[in-house]
Amino acid sequence: MTSHRLPIRVYFEDTDAGGVVYHASYLRFAERARTEALRDAGAPHAQLQATHGMIFVVRRIKMDYLRPAILDSLLVVQTESLAIGGASITLRQRFWDGAELLAQMEVVLVCIHQASLRPARIPPRWRAILTPATPGAAEGE
Amino acid sequence: MTSHRLPIRVYFEDTDAGGVVYHASYLRFAERARTEALRDAGAPHAQLQATHGMIFVVRRIKMDYLRPAILDSLLVVQTESLAIGGASITLRQRFWDGAELLAQMEVVLVCIHQASLRPARIPPRWRAILTPATPGAAEGE
Amino acid sequence: MTSHRLPIRVYFEDTDAGGVVYHASYLRFAERARTEALRDAGAPHAQLQATHGMIFVVRRIKMDYLRPAILDSLLVVQTESLAIGGASITLRQRFWDGAELLAQMEVVLVCIHQASLRPARIPPRWRAILTPATPGAAEGE
Amino acid sequence: MTSHRLPIRVYFEDTDAGGVVYHASYLRFAERARTEALRDAGAPHAQLQATHGMIFVVRRIKMDYLRPAILDSLLVVQTESLAIGGASITLRQRFWDGAELLAQMEVVLVCIHQASLRPARIPPRWRAILTPATPGAAEGE
Repeated sequence: MTSHRLPIRVYFEDTDAGGVVYHASYLRFAERARTEALRDAGAPHAQLQATHGMIFVVRRIKMDYLRPAILDSLLVVQTESLAIGGASITLRQRFWDGAELLAQMEVVLVCIHQASLRPARIPPRWRAILTPATPGAAEGE
Repeated sequence: MTSHRLPIRVYFEDTDAGGVVYHASYLRFAERARTEALRDAGAPHAQLQATHGMIFVVRRIKMDYLRPAILDSLLVVQTESLAIGGASITLRQRFWDGAELLAQMEVVLVCIHQASLRPARIPPRWRAILTPATPGAAEGE
Repeated sequence: MTSHRLPIRVYFEDTDAGGVVYHASYLRFAERARTEALRDAGAPHAQLQATHGMIFVVRRIKMDYLRPAILDSLLVVQTESLAIGGASITLRQRFWDGAELLAQMEVVLVCIHQASLRPARIPPRWRAILTPATPGAAEGE
Repeated sequence: MTSHRLPIRVYFEDTDAGGVVYHASYLRFAERARTEALRDAGAPHAQLQATHGMIFVVRRIKMDYLRPAILDSLLVVQTESLAIGGASITLRQRFWDGAELLAQMEVVLVCIHQASLRPARIPPRWRAILTPATPGAAEGE
């Protein structure tokens, strides 16, 4: 997967009484971006479920909050693959306001059989999409 | 059902950049209160589903916002039955901060078969609980 | 204001364990649509605040839920003005999945001075935008 | 701070169409628990703000999801201090369903002046509360 970018507008629902975007809202934004990254690559998660009975679930998140985002901002969520294993992938997702990096996340997703909840080998089509473009470069950045 | 009261603390997650509780948060609070009202009456919704394959779904909401609620407030959600039909109930839910009424809601719930999604006659046990204590009084208040 | 349409994709964050869109999520969608309707008309709410120290707050909501919406649906929120008063407006917001009407809402907003929290006469620019296109027709529909 | 425990009931609002608790909901639960831990220790965050003009903001989160939580569960969020610095603290928050560990989080909070947004030395009263009970033991667990 090459870098995917999704613009996201900040609404009142995303903010809190501190006047900025609530810290948990970034996880919602990140999931929208992952969903659209797969859809744009022609392999939406609904198809993974319909064809293989599999889904991706979140296994681990590391999130760094650098600068606050405010109401009405038009953020961009940038999604890149860092690594892929048999049943898991590691993505980096960065949250930009123009050229300013607001937050950065690493998320590990595991592919599981929905019936058994057991880890499942990522099918070839999704594997092709989710393999890092230039693994060394991405991780070493 | 006599009047049921559930205390609810306001956290950052419930507020928005306006500095007050986000208007959609009241619907979340109201559902917590309905859930606990049934549980406290000994007839939790999980039992309605397990025993009868039925669930209550929200059909209509009328909500009046009177005063804003702020962070750290300890609200009370008061839930009363206003009317009951074959497959539906009308509840009034009021949101208090001490003696101040912050918001008031009327919600119509419909009992449906989960498989068919068709309206279903409310089973006797839930009917007994959800029948207004003194219907005329409650509605005429 | 003529009819405004905003497409909204349904993500996991918007759904609940019932498998459909959580009933409070429609209020979030509706607010996004109101925000974009004003922005598209060239009079964003941030400008109302910056220029006049005024904001719109939700005073009353009537919501009818007709059909459930599901994950991955691409909904359209249609926003129309029904009526305008000195300090308040009434909008109708409808939620479509293709040609299917999923839910319908009437919302009354009040324009207030942010400092005093008192109702304020809607400034001419917003009044022009928010006046119903053909009031009688819209209300009599 | 010794270990603090907050019970949290899972409602529909917390779940998603996957049938389990939405992954971002844990961050909301964690913040409720931090808020109550400070309140129960007699040093609520509102007081930190009123007395010192300071607030805690989330700087970093590491979250491990081990098992899904389901509707109606009564979770317990356990909050412990792992480390304290001049302007920051590291907490561990664990999410239990009975004896089952569902998720585990490490969160770094930074104390900042609300006016300048610059890091501020944690005042003595909060420092006393947030110092790990037995730092070595907690971190080495």
